Amino acid sequence: MSDLSSLICDRIRDVSDYPQPGIVFKDITPLLADPVAFAAVVDELAGLHQVDKIVGIEARGFILAAPVAYKARAGFVPVRKKGKLPSETLEESYDLEYGSATIEVHRDAFETGDRVLVVDDVLATGGTAEATVELVRRAGAEVVGVAVLMELAFLKGRERLPGVDLRSLVIV
Amino acid sequence: MSDLSSLICDRIRDVSDYPQPGIVFKDITPLLADPVAFAAVVDELAGLHQVDKIVGIEARGFILAAPVAYKARAGFVPVRKKGKLPSETLEESYDLEYGSATIEVHRDAFETGDRVLVVDDVLATGGTAEATVELVRRAGAEVVGVAVLMELAFLKGRERLPGVDLRSLVIV
Repeated sequence: MSDLSSLICDRIRDVSDYPQPGIVFKDITPLLADPVAFAAVVDELAGLHQVDKIVGIEARGFILAAPVAYKARAGFVPVRKKGKLPSETLEESYDLEYGSATIEVHRDAFETGDRVLVVDDVLATGGTAEATVELVRRAGAEVVGVAVLMELAFLKGRERLPGVDLRSLVIV
Repeated sequence: MSDLSSLICDRIRDVSDYPQPGIVFKDITPLLADPVAFAAVVDELAGLHQVDKIVGIEARGFILAAPVAYKARAGFVPVRKKGKLPSETLEESYDLEYGSATIEVHRDAFETGDRVLVVDDVLATGGTAEATVELVRRAGAEVVGVAVLMELAFLKGRERLPGVDLRSLVIV
């Protein structure tokens, strides 16, 4: 395990039965609270690709994606839950275990051909990431990759991102 | 008007009748999308105080607070809407125009005596900021100040933060 992997894993807290009984939630707040670990993660994610824009996914995704944009000297574009963006949007729906969810991006968020990296905290089933990639492409930008702090491999989210350069700082 | 103020004001878009008829919403997404303006805002906010932790308020507040924490080499602590934090929390409720809202912070988010800056995008009526300051103090930390990108002076949010060092990069 690399130094960065152990720095990360030591600062992720398992919380049992959240948000539902039987689920073990990966709580990244101890990592965020540690300035050294937080900066190391941001630096690593910001060094992966040369891009014009970083896309962050509401809400927890903003916490990593925004400093990555800052460090990479890229613009930041939020993808939000339906109804939260004030101007004209494109939207994309995806299935959840029960029901579905819809996310949006501003229609004018990108210049045509912008190189974009999608940054999120956790890749689980991949539904949100897949919908985000589709949304960014429909808005006229090029998805250079998806980068996450942590990939939950047993949920096979990677399979929903064929042809996408997916980087995960830790895989559990 | 300073160079920074005009950089900011030029990149904030007024959206009429959002989220309700008669409201003019201040849309900061054009500012976030501009790497130069975004970095200038983060640098300015990060230079205000020497602190141990930066607190960000869900969801839009995360977009500024997290890079400020990165730049200031401080830890980041999220304040979230009720039910979104996985571990044991403290909570604080406050009044909205109709009904009320409840925000939470992890009970163990701070070391006793941590110096904390609360960063948010917009100070409007001040209800969320006031509740956040109270929450941080109850969690054992010292609130060194509240810093926002934009203060909507006509809503008098400043009056709800007596004795708090409130800094606003622009006041409209």
